[in-house]
Amino acid sequence: MISLAAARQLIVDHVVARSGVAVSLDLAAGRVLAEDVVADGFYPVGDRSQMDGYVVRGDAVPGGFRLAGTVVAGDAPVDPVRPGEAMRIFTGALLPPDGGRVVMQEEARCDGGMVFLERFGDNRFIRAHGSEAAPGARLVAAGTRLGAVELAVLAQVGRTHPRVVPAPVVHHLATGGELVDPSDQPGPGRIRDTNSTLLRALVAGMGGLPFSTRRVPDDLPALVEAAHTTADLLLISGGASVGDYDFGAKALRELGYTIHFDRVNLRPGKPLTFATRGNQAAFVLPGNPVSHFVCFHTAVRLALEQAAGYPLSWPTLWLDLDGPDLIEPSPRETWWPARATVSHGKLSVTPKPWSSSGHTFALAGTNALILVNSESPRDGRALTLLLEPPATLTQSPHV
Amino acid sequence: MISLAAARQLIVDHVVARSGVAVSLDLAAGRVLAEDVVADGFYPVGDRSQMDGYVVRGDAVPGGFRLAGTVVAGDAPVDPVRPGEAMRIFTGALLPPDGGRVVMQEEARCDGGMVFLERFGDNRFIRAHGSEAAPGARLVAAGTRLGAVELAVLAQVGRTHPRVVPAPVVHHLATGGELVDPSDQPGPGRIRDTNSTLLRALVAGMGGLPFSTRRVPDDLPALVEAAHTTADLLLISGGASVGDYDFGAKALRELGYTIHFDRVNLRPGKPLTFATRGNQAAFVLPGNPVSHFVCFHTAVRLALEQAAGYPLSWPTLWLDLDGPDLIEPSPRETWWPARATVSHGKLSVTPKPWSSSGHTFALAGTNALILVNSESPRDGRALTLLLEPPATLTQSPHV
Repeated sequence: MISLAAARQLIVDHVVARSGVAVSLDLAAGRVLAEDVVADGFYPVGDRSQMDGYVVRGDAVPGGFRLAGTVVAGDAPVDPVRPGEAMRIFTGALLPPDGGRVVMQEEARCDGGMVFLERFGDNRFIRAHGSEAAPGARLVAAGTRLGAVELAVLAQVGRTHPRVVPAPVVHHLATGGELVDPSDQPGPGRIRDTNSTLLRALVAGMGGLPFSTRRVPDDLPALVEAAHTTADLLLISGGASVGDYDFGAKALRELGYTIHFDRVNLRPGKPLTFATRGNQAAFVLPGNPVSHFVCFHTAVRLALEQAAGYPLSWPTLWLDLDGPDLIEPSPRETWWPARATVSHGKLSVTPKPWSSSGHTFALAGTNALILVNSESPRDGRALTLLLEPPATLTQSPHV
Repeated sequence: MISLAAARQLIVDHVVARSGVAVSLDLAAGRVLAEDVVADGFYPVGDRSQMDGYVVRGDAVPGGFRLAGTVVAGDAPVDPVRPGEAMRIFTGALLPPDGGRVVMQEEARCDGGMVFLERFGDNRFIRAHGSEAAPGARLVAAGTRLGAVELAVLAQVGRTHPRVVPAPVVHHLATGGELVDPSDQPGPGRIRDTNSTLLRALVAGMGGLPFSTRRVPDDLPALVEAAHTTADLLLISGGASVGDYDFGAKALRELGYTIHFDRVNLRPGKPLTFATRGNQAAFVLPGNPVSHFVCFHTAVRLALEQAAGYPLSWPTLWLDLDGPDLIEPSPRETWWPARATVSHGKLSVTPKPWSSSGHTFALAGTNALILVNSESPRDGRALTLLLEPPATLTQSPHV
């Protein structure tokens, strides 16, 4: 049995990022850039107005000016602005040749064909040619995960088909003769399959990764057959304890995978198996949904992040604990379901009433996991792994 | 001009959640539940084993037992376990009639047709009938946003077509004669349209909301024509300052919208317009991409959250500031692009080198906005709005 830290290191060591491919900006959302993106020219090209107002020559002084035209964004003015003249200009418009200063329209008074500009300030309200980027300037580095802002930067420089690390593809097998489809009424002894729904949503929550799922009986040949896949990551639910009906690791060995670990000092989730075969990775997860949830966030997610080329992330924070009496230091590393919330500008965390059984209902509302180990302090704080977007931190409480 | 707080209240007052519809679990991911979900029966049904081991009668005492059969998950045993007998049992399996205790296999020794169970502990390793939920127990409340765990709960109780608030539909118009498609080379005076890419990704980042976009020239009739939509939210980029070429608010009035505000004490983003018509809402956003980004996170997002029925979220935290010299208290409420990071279990925030111009490049890597107003403290802390999932808090730095 190895520690979670050692298990995570083995995942980092054995899962490689997929090779970069060029995709459209829509498909690039959430993906990691596989190349640097640089400026394709000067930004801005030419001097541009920062304001709606009037443009005059750089050597002009306050006074009256003859109105000599209008420049709007999109125009390419060729006539220069002459001494004693001003042109109406709008935000983003290119300055005419010899134009060197914009005066805000709030400072202007028009009268017939004349405009009177009373005061010139220090600010010329010009975005100068090349002031934001020169050709070749690196704007977004290889290895950056592309969010909305980075995609806008790529659009601005015309990089509409960037090379990115493609989304890893996940194939899931739910083993267990007792499972029925969630839409079916379980017969005696049977239960509905919840892990497929759980894993599909957890994987989708990482940025819409492709996911397929299939139920297979507790039968080694059937599992081996179903586990043939070209997916980047194979997830097998159930079949991970020492029971006679556990076939996950056996099937992986039979398919040529190398097992890197099969037990982790992790509660819940001890009988967690990790294996690779070439560029493919596989996990066998203990069957209960709470174990699935914890194994996903502490181990499986890391493999997906590695395959997707994401920067390593492990957003663990020391937070004040509401209800610290629920948590006792424990020699077995435990990741306890919890709910983090923001109140008065401060994050704190409340453990869920969870009792290591496979009790999915108690997990509802979980957006964090608290680490409990032999070094857990008794000072009312807990090291907390945040799982969800910040928006959920201020949701109203769940039942 | 109104405060951002007053503007947000007007949005809350005027945007209503869409009516609930029944959808499949896949489509329910990220949506808000429009009805309570209750248990459809007892959970678990019957007493179930928590371990791989041996089941004996509740009144049995340690000793040797005759092996009388095997029960696996999915079986519906009808033969009782008799005095002096034990049955092999696996995790999740239903106990046979009269079975009252499971002994872990680690405590058992098999010899021929006999099993010797040396010690009975306090724990009977049984998940008792109905111990997790009784029929009618509320498991997920109306108003809850459905994450992976809540979807798994719905799967478990067979609620495969829950009634949810559907995703609001967004229609976007980018105005400006200077705009060309990101895949085109801009001619003199022209620039590439970045706001369409930015808004599409920001909207998608809220959970894959449907989004359409179209570029229109600076022309009132063309804008009015393009703004005819049945979408829940209409976003118009540009056309929001006081310049002569600004048609956004005019077009909305012509289409029968009521304008609730058209200027907010917000930097960047002052000339922000909000309007509604029946159950439709509309914003006109100032043209520069930094303003778009700030207006989206402080105002537009709130309208989408309201339309989607999301619980209100405003995840603002007091964080330690790295580089506090960059921030001076300001009478104009400013939301300053910044990057929050986790280090040694603690969140802190670094302002981006941003000057209020429309400089998209400087935004790369932004995952937070810092509030700067006249009450901003000078003690090295800043009230910070978190924008992105926790994973980005520990990404490697962007250029």
